[in-house]
Amino acid sequence: MNEAYNNIITRRSIRNFTGEIVSKEIIDLILEAGLAAPSAVNKQPWEILVVEDREILDTIANLEGFYTKMTKKASAAIVVCGNTEKTLPGLAQIYWVQDTSAMTENILLASHALGIGAVWTGVYPSVDRVKKVSELLDLPSHIIPLNIIPIGVISNENTFAKEIDKSCIHYGKWTK
Amino acid sequence: MNEAYNNIITRRSIRNFTGEIVSKEIIDLILEAGLAAPSAVNKQPWEILVVEDREILDTIANLEGFYTKMTKKASAAIVVCGNTEKTLPGLAQIYWVQDTSAMTENILLASHALGIGAVWTGVYPSVDRVKKVSELLDLPSHIIPLNIIPIGVISNENTFAKEIDKSCIHYGKWTK
Repeated sequence: MNEAYNNIITRRSIRNFTGEIVSKEIIDLILEAGLAAPSAVNKQPWEILVVEDREILDTIANLEGFYTKMTKKASAAIVVCGNTEKTLPGLAQIYWVQDTSAMTENILLASHALGIGAVWTGVYPSVDRVKKVSELLDLPSHIIPLNIIPIGVISNENTFAKEIDKSCIHYGKWTK
Repeated sequence: MNEAYNNIITRRSIRNFTGEIVSKEIIDLILEAGLAAPSAVNKQPWEILVVEDREILDTIANLEGFYTKMTKKASAAIVVCGNTEKTLPGLAQIYWVQDTSAMTENILLASHALGIGAVWTGVYPSVDRVKKVSELLDLPSHIIPLNIIPIGVISNENTFAKEIDKSCIHYGKWTK
């Protein structure tokens, strides 16, 4: 058995939290794993906001047009953002989306490895969601929130098997 | 020690391969880890092409405007693509980039967990690169290559410590 491999295969989106606090030490480990993600030309064009304030978490839980209700019982919300002042120039600027998505996957996998629940809730590219999160967290225009990741102590793990469709794997050139 | 957590922290981009073959069993495990990635509304809007043909691998290694030279000694190249016919509608279509980036990070982490070298080389959003890869692999217009991931037996691991800048971590609202 390869624990590192199995951690990738067994990760699930967790939306049920007990409301208990996740320690600062654990959150720091999770963030550090996020920072270990690769980025195009190693630009690391990202910022991470860690929201632990109960009032702001409750506001996030009630944002209209979001799927963030579980934040009500989360211990924290990690908001992964792109910083367009740190990116590559021109069209390549948009690589920040790929870089921060890799960072997000690292955050989800590290949470799972440490026994903490987490779920990726999308913000960008919804103009409405980006606007609401930016207002709530005072983000300047060059800081674009990619997502909100509520994290917390797991109360009810989603244990059903995820259906994986392998028909998307092709050997050699495209043949359909 | 938490093997699953350490796997995330210790992953590095590997660009030096011995030229030896990676078994089909290992490649299948790597692909399966890719398919375990989350996707927006579970649309799984992706396709994976696995290139093992020596001639095509050599062509990839020599593509102008790419950073894919290491493919010359790779055992295979995994080409992660978005399928715009499987995505969410409207503006949310572009979630495929986030979904396939999470898939890519899983592929890189699974390779590392299994002792195989891999590196993310960017294709999308470069119009020129997307065109060249699409021509080479006969991709129809709704299949968009996100990247090329050469994988192989490691000949020379890049062991220097990656510099991590923690100044991108912020607690609470934006305060700069």
